[in-house]
Formats: sequence, C-alpha cells, structure tokens
Amino acid sequence: MTSFASPLWRKLQVYQVYGANTNVGKTVITTLLCKVAPRAGFLKPVSTGPSSEADDRHVKQFSPGTVTQCLYQFEEPVSPHIAATAHASQAPGDAEIVSSIHNILTRWAKDEAMSHAFVETAGGVHSPGPSGTSQADLYRPLRLPVVLVADFRLGGISSTIAAYESLLVRGYDVESVLVFEDAYYRNSDYLMDYFAARDIPLLALQRPPERLRRESLGNSSSDDAFQRDQQAMARYYEAVSRPSSGLGGLLSDLSVRHERRIGELETMASTAHKSIWYPFTQHNGLKPESLTVIDSARGDHFQVFQQPAVKADSSSSSVLGPVYDGSASWWTQGLGHGNPELALGAAYAAGRYGHVMFALGAHKPAIELAGLVLQHTANERLVRVFYSDNGSTAMEVAVKMALRASCQRYRWNAGTDEVEILGLKGSYHGDTIGTMDCSEPSTFNQKVEWYRGRGYWFDFPQVKMVRGSWTVVFPDQLAHAAHGNERESFSSLADIFNIEHREHSGFGRLYAYFIQQTLENLVKKQGRKFGALILEPLVLGAGGMLFVDPLFQHMLIKTVRQNPELIEPSLPIPGPSSSKSWTGLPIIFDEVFTGLYRFYHFSPSTFFPQASRPDIVANAKLLTGGLLPLSMTLASEDIFDAFSSSPAKEQALLHGHSYTAHPVGCHVARMSVTKMMEMERDGAWDQFKESWVDAGPGVATVDAAPRVTVWSIWPQNLLTALSNAASVESVWALGTVLSIVLCDHDSPGEPNFLPACPDSSFLSSRG
Amino acid sequence: MTSFASPLWRKLQVYQVYGANTNVGKTVITTLLCKVAPRAGFLKPVSTGPSSEADDRHVKQFSPGTVTQCLYQFEEPVSPHIAATAHASQAPGDAEIVSSIHNILTRWAKDEAMSHAFVETAGGVHSPGPSGTSQADLYRPLRLPVVLVADFRLGGISSTIAAYESLLVRGYDVESVLVFEDAYYRNSDYLMDYFAARDIPLLALQRPPERLRRESLGNSSSDDAFQRDQQAMARYYEAVSRPSSGLGGLLSDLSVRHERRIGELETMASTAHKSIWYPFTQHNGLKPESLTVIDSARGDHFQVFQQPAVKADSSSSSVLGPVYDGSASWWTQGLGHGNPELALGAAYAAGRYGHVMFALGAHKPAIELAGLVLQHTANERLVRVFYSDNGSTAMEVAVKMALRASCQRYRWNAGTDEVEILGLKGSYHGDTIGTMDCSEPSTFNQKVEWYRGRGYWFDFPQVKMVRGSWTVVFPDQLAHAAHGNERESFSSLADIFNIEHREHSGFGRLYAYFIQQTLENLVKKQGRKFGALILEPLVLGAGGMLFVDPLFQHMLIKTVRQNPELIEPSLPIPGPSSSKSWTGLPIIFDEVFTGLYRFYHFSPSTFFPQASRPDIVANAKLLTGGLLPLSMTLASEDIFDAFSSSPAKEQALLHGHSYTAHPVGCHVARMSVTKMMEMERDGAWDQFKESWVDAGPGVATVDAAPRVTVWSIWPQNLLTALSNAASVESVWALGTVLSIVLCDHDSPGEPNFLPACPDSSFLSSRG
Repeated sequence: MTSFASPLWRKLQVYQVYGANTNVGKTVITTLLCKVAPRAGFLKPVSTGPSSEADDRHVKQFSPGTVTQCLYQFEEPVSPHIAATAHASQAPGDAEIVSSIHNILTRWAKDEAMSHAFVETAGGVHSPGPSGTSQADLYRPLRLPVVLVADFRLGGISSTIAAYESLLVRGYDVESVLVFEDAYYRNSDYLMDYFAARDIPLLALQRPPERLRRESLGNSSSDDAFQRDQQAMARYYEAVSRPSSGLGGLLSDLSVRHERRIGELETMASTAHKSIWYPFTQHNGLKPESLTVIDSARGDHFQVFQQPAVKADSSSSSVLGPVYDGSASWWTQGLGHGNPELALGAAYAAGRYGHVMFALGAHKPAIELAGLVLQHTANERLVRVFYSDNGSTAMEVAVKMALRASCQRYRWNAGTDEVEILGLKGSYHGDTIGTMDCSEPSTFNQKVEWYRGRGYWFDFPQVKMVRGSWTVVFPDQLAHAAHGNERESFSSLADIFNIEHREHSGFGRLYAYFIQQTLENLVKKQGRKFGALILEPLVLGAGGMLFVDPLFQHMLIKTVRQNPELIEPSLPIPGPSSSKSWTGLPIIFDEVFTGLYRFYHFSPSTFFPQASRPDIVANAKLLTGGLLPLSMTLASEDIFDAFSSSPAKEQALLHGHSYTAHPVGCHVARMSVTKMMEMERDGAWDQFKESWVDAGPGVATVDAAPRVTVWSIWPQNLLTALSNAASVESVWALGTVLSIVLCDHDSPGEPNFLPACPDSSFLSSRG
Repeated sequence: MTSFASPLWRKLQVYQVYGANTNVGKTVITTLLCKVAPRAGFLKPVSTGPSSEADDRHVKQFSPGTVTQCLYQFEEPVSPHIAATAHASQAPGDAEIVSSIHNILTRWAKDEAMSHAFVETAGGVHSPGPSGTSQADLYRPLRLPVVLVADFRLGGISSTIAAYESLLVRGYDVESVLVFEDAYYRNSDYLMDYFAARDIPLLALQRPPERLRRESLGNSSSDDAFQRDQQAMARYYEAVSRPSSGLGGLLSDLSVRHERRIGELETMASTAHKSIWYPFTQHNGLKPESLTVIDSARGDHFQVFQQPAVKADSSSSSVLGPVYDGSASWWTQGLGHGNPELALGAAYAAGRYGHVMFALGAHKPAIELAGLVLQHTANERLVRVFYSDNGSTAMEVAVKMALRASCQRYRWNAGTDEVEILGLKGSYHGDTIGTMDCSEPSTFNQKVEWYRGRGYWFDFPQVKMVRGSWTVVFPDQLAHAAHGNERESFSSLADIFNIEHREHSGFGRLYAYFIQQTLENLVKKQGRKFGALILEPLVLGAGGMLFVDPLFQHMLIKTVRQNPELIEPSLPIPGPSSSKSWTGLPIIFDEVFTGLYRFYHFSPSTFFPQASRPDIVANAKLLTGGLLPLSMTLASEDIFDAFSSSPAKEQALLHGHSYTAHPVGCHVARMSVTKMMEMERDGAWDQFKESWVDAGPGVATVDAAPRVTVWSIWPQNLLTALSNAASVESVWALGTVLSIVLCDHDSPGEPNFLPACPDSSFLSSRG
C-alpha cells in the first residue's frame, strides 16, 4: 500500500463531501461552500455522466473564483464501477485515485491564497468507485474530515444516520452536516437534535429551485428552459450565499474545529508527557518531543503529528506524516490497522452481546473460536480452551495448569516443596510476577521487588545464516561435549528442520546426552523438583530474536517425556494412560509471539513431529488480528483432569478475569483467524515461497504451488547478501521475521541485534 | 426495561422486514413472501398514511390467506414520529410497541397452521418510531432475524450497505436480502457479490408494474386507473410467486438458516462442555445442562436457550427466554448489554486506529481518558496513569510501583529482604500469582502451587444493619481492646461515614491504638518489612461483600502515614517533600470493584478525607461500561519518581502488555465514564436518594436535589424490613450493592452471604 501523509495543513482546510444518498444536493451545497469560502478548490475525483453537465463545470459556473478539477470523467450516467467496466483501460486503481487526490491537495496547500478545498464524492458513502471498492473505503487512506450532506427527502432521516454510522465505522470524523429544508418531512429538525447530541453542527439551507429542463420536460432539450434554470440557480446561489444564510457561521464552526484538531495534535505530546506512565519506558530525560502523536492508522502505517521544523513554512507543510509500523505494534497486527471488517465485527458482537459473564455461560463467538483453534492447531493432545486477557495471563494459567498436574502425579506438596520450571535461557513469558518467575534472572526482572526466578534454564544451539551458510551454533557447554565443535553447517534451512532425520545423527544423540546429564545433575544430585517444561517454539522473541535449533527443543521434549525418572526418581513410573497423556513433565509452548501464522504455520508446533507437540499452548497477540486483548490457553485432557478428579470447588482452576472470553474479542478473533486460514488456502503467500523452493532435498518440491513448509517473506538471496556484509555477524529469517545481528567491534562478545518486521499487515496487503 | 423472550420458535419462523430506504418495495416483497409461505402472518406495528391504503390491507388483498394486523395507524403520510406528535395521546411508547408485537407473535406461534410471520417496519432502518427512537433501536429487544429489502434505485448500493451496517452494529442477523431488478443500475449484481461474501443469500425479483394512479395522474382519483393498477398488480403477484421465481428457494434457504440457528443453540452446551475450560469452575460432575447458552443480551437481560421440557409442546414453546444478569456479568456492566452507542464507539476507534503500539505513542483516546479520570477522581496526589488489561494486571502494576518506592526509600534489598504487604483479611486483588500473593492464605489460593501469601492482614470492624439499626461490629481482637464491647450502634449510615467527627471519639483512638500495637509487634518484635498498604475501599467484594468501617481504613492509613518509624524504625525519618508525597507506606486502593460509580461516587476515595486518599489506585471492570477489558493504575508523582530518578533503562517500570491502552478500550471507556458523569450531573439517580435524605445530622440536607453522599438505590425501609426477618442475620446496602447475610442455624458462627446486585444497567435504565 502506498503511504503518504493524511492531508492536514494549518492554513488550507480540506473536507470530503459525502452524501447520505445520491441526489441530496452535494454539488449545490459544495458550490455554496466554495462561494462563501475566501478561496476554494473543488475536486471531483470521479465523475460520471456527460462532461457538459459535470459537477466541476457547475461549480466553476456559479462560483467563478473557485479552482476546479475533475480527475476521472466517464460519460455514462451510471455508477463509476459500471462506467469503468466499459472502459477498463481508462479505469484507475484505488491507489492511483487516492494518490492523485493527495498530489492535487498538496499543490493547493502551497498556494497562499487558497483557504478551503472540497473533495466531492459521487452518490452515497458506499457508492462504488471505479474498481468497485466502496468510496468510504477507497478514500479512507486520506481520512479527510467529512462534510456530510443529509437527505431531506422521505426516508432521509434513516439514510442520513446509516451513512453517518458507516463513516464512523471507518474512523472518519464528520465535522458538519448540511441539509436542504423541507417543510413537510422536517428531517432537518430531527437531524439537528441527533447531531447536536453528538457535538456536530447541522445547517439547514433553502432548497434550490426545481430544474425545469430535467424534471418537467424530459430529455427534449429546450434552450429557453435551460436559460431560465440557469438564471434561477444564479439567483438562488446569490440569495443563499449571503451572510445571513448561516453558511458563514458554518465555515467559522469548521475553522474552530480545524484549529482545535491541530491544537490537540500540538499539545497531545506534552499532555501525555505529564499524565501518562509509559510501559517499559525510562522517563528520566524523556522529552515530549520523543513521543509519537498518532492521529490515525491504516494498513501498515500510522499518521503522526509532525512538529513543524521551520515556523515560516509551517502553513503549507503537512501537519501529519506517515510512519511505518515497524514492529507491527508489538507484533500484534495481522490484517492491518483500521481494518473495516474487524471494526464492523467488533460492533456486531458489541451490539449483540456487549460482554456476557462466562462463568458457566456459552456464547457463539467463544465456542466457535475455541473449536476453530483446537481443530487447526494440529495437535491431537489439545482438547480444551481456557480464555484470558493477554499473553501474560495465558501463561499464568498455563503455569497453574502444569504445576497442578505434576505436583499431583509426583505427590509433591507445593506448599512446602519448591517446585520449579525448566526452560531456555533468554526466554520471556510476560510481565505479571508469576510469569516473570518463569524466566531466568536478568538485569531487567531482578529490579522487580517480588521477582524470584524459579527454574533452570538451558543454554541452547542457535540457527543463523553466517556468510551465506545456514549454521547451527553451539553454546559453550554443548561445544565442549561435542569435543570442541562449535558449529555445524547445513545446505539449507529446510535441512535444519528435517528433525526426524537429524534425530538419529550424531547431534541428536549429543543433545539427548547433554540434556540427560544436566537433568540428572539437577534432580538427583541437587534434589530439585521441576513441574513444567516451558518453551517458546523456534524463536525467543522478547529475549532478542533468538532462533533455537528445532532439534534441540525436540530432543529436550523427547528426553523429558521418555524419562520421567529424570524428573522424579523416587516414585514408580506410571505408564501413560494414552498416547495423548503427558509423561515426564507437562510441556508448555508459549506461542504468544510465534503462533497464528507468524511463521506461516497456523501453529509453530507443526514444525515438530506429533511426538514433540505440547500439552499446553498459550496464544495471544495475533489472535484478534491486531485489534483487542484476548488470549487462550489450550490444554490436553489429562491436564484438565488434574483439576476435576475431585468434586471439591477449591480443586478447580482458580482463575478468571471479569471480561473472560468477551464476545467482542472472540468474534473478532474468529474473523481474523478465519481470514488468515483463507489466505493460506488461496495461496495468498505463494509468491514468497519461490526463493525457498530448492531449499533442501526431500522437503521442498517444485510445482504450481510449491510445497515448502519452511520459508520467509524475506527472499533467501537477500539473506545471503546481508550475511556477507562486513558489519553483519549473522542473519536469519523465518515467516514474517527477519533478524540481523550486527558485529559490535567494541565488544565482540555482545552482538547488537536488530529484529525487523515487514508490513504489519503483509498477511493481507501482500496477499 | 420490560423483559420477555426474544421471539424464536421451532415451527413458526419470524422475520423483521427492514428496508434499505423508503419506497424500495418492502410491502410488495413482503406480500410475495406471504403468498409463497404455507401460511403467513403479516404484522405492521406502525403505519402512517390513509388506512384505506395501509400495507396490511394490501397484503390481505393480494395474499388472501395471510393473517394481517396493524398495531398503530396514523392517518398522515409522514414519519411516525411526526404523526405521533400530532396525536400525542394515542402515541404508544417503545416498550408498549415491542410488548404488543411480542404478544401477537406469541399468539401466532401457538397456531399450528402458521408457518411464517413477517413484521414490516416503516421507511428505512433508522426511520423513527412514534417516540422518535430509531426503529433499529426500538425493535432491538426482539432481535428478530432480518429480511433486508435492498434499494434498486440509483444510489441504492450505498443505502443498502449502510443500512446493513447499521443493523450489524445493533447485533441483528440479516438472513436474506431481496431486491428488485433494474437493468440499468444493476445494483443487484453488485449486492449479490457483496452479500455472498458475507454468506447471505440475495434474490433479485422482477419489478412490479408502475402504478398508474399515483405516479402519472397525480392526486386526481380515477377509478379506471385504480382498477387497472389492481389488475396489473394481481398479475404481477401471480407471475412472481410462481416456483420458478426463486422465492420458494429463498424460503428454503431461510428455513435452513432457521434450523441451523436452533441446531446451534441445541448443541452449543454440549460443544462447550467438551471444549471449554471454565473460569473458577469445578468441572467434576458438571453437566452440559448446567451451562447457560446465551443467544444475545440487551440491557439487564440475557436471552438464553430454553431446553424444551416436554417434547410434544416444543414447537410452540419459546426457544429463548430472558434471564436477569444478577451479578451484572461479574460487576462489569454500567450502561447495559448491547448498548448501541458503545458498539458504534468501538467500531469508530477500530476504524480510526485499530490498535497502535503505546510505547512512546500518544493517541487521543488514551490521553483523554487519562485526563478525565485523573481530573475527576478528586485526589490531588494522583497525576499519572499506567494502562493495562484487567484488574489483576492493574494490581500487579500497583504492587510493582509501591514496592519499588518503599524499598528505595527504606534502602531495603528486595533480592534478599522479604518485603511484604499490609492488608485486610478477606481481601482479594486478582488471579495472577503476584496479586494472589497479596491476599491471606485461604482454602482457595493455597491450592495454587506457586501461591505464597506475602503479608499481614488485619481483622477489621464491619458495618451492618442489624434489626433495623446501623451497627459497627468489632472483631475479637478489637472487642478485647474495647473491654469486651462487641459493637456500636449508629442512628444512620451517614453517621458512620462522618469520619472526621468519629476520629476524635473513643473509637478513633481505639482503632489507632490497636493498629499501632499491631505494627509495633510485627515490625519491631518480629522484624518484618512491609512495602505497601493495600485496601479495597469500603467493601471487599470478592471476599464475600464485607463492608469495612470507613473509620478503620482511615485510621489505618493515617497511622501508617504519620508514623513511618512504625514501618522502618532504624532509619532517620525523611520529612515528606510535599503534602502529596507518600509517607510511611505507599497506600494502594484497589477500586476495581468499588470504583466508577459503584457507590455513586466517581471514586470511593471521596468517602474519605483528602488526608487518607491513596497514592496509587487500580481501576477496571466498570471502566469500559461493561464492554471490554481495560484497566488503569493511577499514581502520585513521587511514586513515579522512584522509577525515573536514574536514567538506567532497567530502573523503569518493567511492565507493558501488547495491547496496552488499546484505542478501542480507551475510547469506549471515555464514552462510558463521560455518560455516567452526565447522569450524575443531570440528577438521573436523585429519585433513589429520597429514602436516605434524613439519614443523619449534618451530612444530608433536604432541598430540590437532596445533597446526600451516602445512599443506595435500595431504599432504607427495605433494608429495615429485611434486617428484621427471622432468617436474616444482617443486611447492608451502599450504592448499587445490597448484601443480605442469612442466619445459618447449623453453624451459627458461619453466616451464609448472599450478595445481590440490582439492574446491571441501572445506571442508565433507572435514570
């Protein structure tokens, strides 16, 4: 999606004129606005019908001082999408139209004399543009302030309010409403109250004279009638554009609102700087100018306030500018900012349910979402969904689940025994204190007064592309066990993911041996008790974008599962009650960052064989497509059974937030997950697979839709080139993630990392 | 709000016919549907225009087998709200209309022969009913499945989609779309694709003949033309109602969708029972029948699936039934379920922003909400807002804030020192493990493996009405200190709240003495360190609706604040840097349950003098008016300074969820909080104050709007009556909360409690 500034200037006021319906008087009212404005520009992006009757000519005729322009003119008097079909070669695309409007407005903004610009739409708010896209969507990237022309006719109250609501759903601000007076239907009385309650001024204007030529005489042209029409219109315009008509007051209202909007943008940073306590932010030395004031967002871009660099030039420099959302807003975005379908979905669930209590309640959004995710997560162990609000609470729930199951089976007394967790160094599972305790002590979490790291964290081999070669780099302990071998090269990333093949190689045995020795030391020698194995599958996001050798995670799970005596040596080992039961330890996958198509798999578990898929999974972030907080913890039947083996209420899982499984979040999540599944099914991302096709023997095959399971939207040759740059230590890419580790010549042991993310909405916009 | 079942029967299919605009052919299309249906009922709730031309007569004439009825007929051919104004005495209220429709449909459902009922609206979706309420809102309590008649005319694509979106925002399900064909504008082609993508069938029908009488001959009546019109219409109806027209297929589609909906309702409980892990629920022995299947919600009521009791009778018994939301969905609801303004607000913020990252970002919803709450919380100490997702995370943040501040000032090493919190017995602050640790050990939290209660919890005096008398009941330790005095009676609840007066009474000194002795024992004798005082102001909700004597909380805060040596005896006591600085300990108010008008105060802090208002406050639940998870932690400047005294990043407050300050939540919260403030300002609740007016000397005065600060929507005489019932041990009420403690004759020391809540949306519906 092309990115440009949402048009906003200090001096030039720009409005988009939308109509509640067709034939409600948009052009007449816009002509009046042009006449009354000190100096206006009139822009008609798309016009249909004979050019001799085009709206820009009408404006030019009756408001001669106005600069007028029409971008695309189709002669047929039909909807632009039909006209454009007939002339497909002339038909502009959505991006072209929007970009052309932007260019013209930018030029007008540089004209000192120009005070107002009005961009007139065609038909109603949802009348299709040439490509068939509804105008309300087509023009949304500009998000111009709206002047809405209401419908004065019978039924006009309804069409006006419905049009207004459709604009709201797309995040437009309606700055004023204009409507013709009608003494019989009196729509303006009703609408005046309606909009006043919403702080939107409405102005009712005298109706223009009936046109003789069209209405009464049909198609037979009559020069005389035409002349009389023209004269009547001229008199009308003169009368209604007089100061007493209220149009002057309306323009003043608009100016006040324009100034207020800019004033808010100017002061928001200092207000925020005084009143907001920012997450993960050191406020010491923080200046208001460091804050990004976000006016709106669309697709992959924010529209942010631009501090004027030079005062003198400020009136014609854009108040807003686009900023690329490089981290996909903390890795939440799947379908792009300001997605109208998700917005409407949120409204539907809010209108149908609001929030309804989930204690023993069942509603369609929660039940359908649970079924959808359980079905497609491709892990036969997972049968239950527990809802909560964010990744951190989903992991709190996961920890409660796993510890209960293990303490129960191993007959540990959690009140007196210190039960810990197993994990990987650099892991991170959230900011609530219980989940912080699942991560090893570090500079950061040790500052939290109640933090007590409760676990053991393995160092692990990492996947990197180094100087064009896919490599697994061993940590010291493993290199030592491997007789000083520090790394292993592979011909492709797919080879590294060929877990079942590699398991029986020397490295599979090496990993297993290392893990077994470590556990024996911890449990038998040190007497420690571990109640869960917690892993972020494949990539540790918050820990600095570390790509774990999948074979290591596989061997860790397999070793724990096959050797329960490593966890509790003093008990007879119960055989698993079924192939879906947990053995050794409950395995938790924290898929908050890595789940739901981050790597173009529904779940990263599917990079692993069934035997090493988890007993418990936490999902969040991408779950709602980037709109709202919602999370789920999936669990296996025997984890669930650990809480329901007795009828005692206090044995239940004691967790549940007020807005558990809120219908708005569940409904939007179901829409978003379904949409991403459709994109996968329809091959929306196939173009990105090409550079990864010949990635490895036995895994990838070439045909119409290449069957590649390990790939990234970042092409392999880009990685190769990057990895050969002198300043780069290593790179890797998987799914949507690209990580570049720079050499730090000052402290070579501590490479800087630069995680990068493509389009936040690439899942759609690149599809 | 009257409550009744949302009409849904197994046999009778009921649809509401909405038009995209007026004059789109609703009546003709409904007549066709009636003709094709085996046996239909036609209901026109409100009709305007001459009764000789009324829609029900038209239907009767051309579909003679149809049962027709019109509820309210106004002769003027204008919008019902204008017609009703002229005949105010005849004009029905919204509730009456809806109730009448419900009654007729219920009667028809009992008629074995009846297969379909069509309720035809007037004009467009938002055309006002007699009271002026938009029809889409007026009829929403019924939430009938919708047949939408699209607009075939120029502009009709836009008006149809806008109407559809307005219906969605109110939680309606559109089950099919019908539209007249128009070869020139071809709206049906576009709309067919549009609705197919949304899984909604669309049927295009031949247009009826032009009416000679109205269109061509103006008002001059002509019997001949009338006759010809009638004959043409009759021929049209015959032709279009033939099986080949597609109407039969459409009815089949509708039947399939009707069956599917009921099928989903029937199976949802068993699906949920298999796949959902419910919060705070013991699943052992839980049957699917124990689950409440919620189809929709509105105001204070859910519409829930009714398991048919007797098979034989099931076709005419209602599939849905209303259930009162007695706990206001875990105390979240402020403005009622399915509130269309909040739904639209959610959509606006979603359309304008989606979610945008809040790390150093500033957006209007978050900044405005922060300012609004800081300003009106009436606590000069609070200047900063930290956003998170729910009450539990807000309290995790509060604990992190307070412990940092106290450890820093008292130079404790949190890594080695065990720093605890002070609180009250029975308190509860959330389900994440860090906040669980803030509550005393109990049957419940001790089952959580990582729970370690870290604190000391005071027993406290409770407020109750016992046998008609407002009483403060002391716990054993206090009664002992009070020389065996177990309780104190007051002439009114307001007297109990006269904190400044009572402070200097014997009981103020008694409380202070008791608190001081306890702290000296804990700190000096036992050597314990306390880093925060955490209180739920006035009422401990989750702990069993315990009403704390406000004087006790006041004295606790005052004692801690004035005697820092009680907290850390070994350090020289730094004087407070300003009157807004914390001394002794940071005081945290957990207002998650009690805040934002639960007690008809913006904040329960305002029941206390400024001197005992908190340094840190957590808000959630009612914050978004009952729609979405969002929470905030408010803090004072010197709490904030504890994290920004050094520029080190790791000294910052290390907390922040992915959806921190999500714009949808902040925007909806700002709307909801503003609405509640307006209701307070406009005296929306004044009627409830009356029974509390003469509640105490010096506090309450009687005038036009009684200035009562301590009151409840539950009248005092109800409390008196309840408290005198033999089975009742005690009662109390404050704000929206009524608590009744029953005598338990089996174990008299353990009274059962029965917390009760009034209308979940009383804030609006009783206003």
